[in-house]
Amino acid sequence: MNEYDHLRQQLGKRVKARRRQQRLSQETLAFQAEIDRTYVSQIERGISNPSLHVLCKIAEALLVSVTDLLSEPESATE
Amino acid sequence: MNEYDHLRQQLGKRVKARRRQQRLSQETLAFQAEIDRTYVSQIERGISNPSLHVLCKIAEALLVSVTDLLSEPESATE
Repeated sequence: MNEYDHLRQQLGKRVKARRRQQRLSQETLAFQAEIDRTYVSQIERGISNPSLHVLCKIAEALLVSVTDLLSEPESATE
Repeated sequence: MNEYDHLRQQLGKRVKARRRQQRLSQETLAFQAEIDRTYVSQIERGISNPSLHVLCKIAEALLVSVTDLLSEPESATE
């Protein structure tokens, strides 16, 4: 798996783990991040290519930094 | 300045500093990252909204991680 695919999957797991930790539904996160719910689902499945702006809005909605969503290790958020 | 604008400017400074450290021209970085030279210039001026894929290709070309390009502090790369 190349770095990009690894990062997309990593991002998906982190967004899902953090969203659940915050007890938010995909709909609520989508509303707060001003994106479509289906896009939240794609991000969480690691099949999207979000822009820096979308990453910022999701990070803000989840009360973390963008680098938190992209960096190792995962265990910190579960 | 909101988080997104701060991050874009932060990214721009980090890409420029790292590129110079690697003694790469904008043209060479653009070629290696498979993006247009004018896009490298926009990124370095903090006025772009790059996707995760573009961030990955730039990070790979600069031999750093995406989180390196987005995180504090700057001093580590100058």
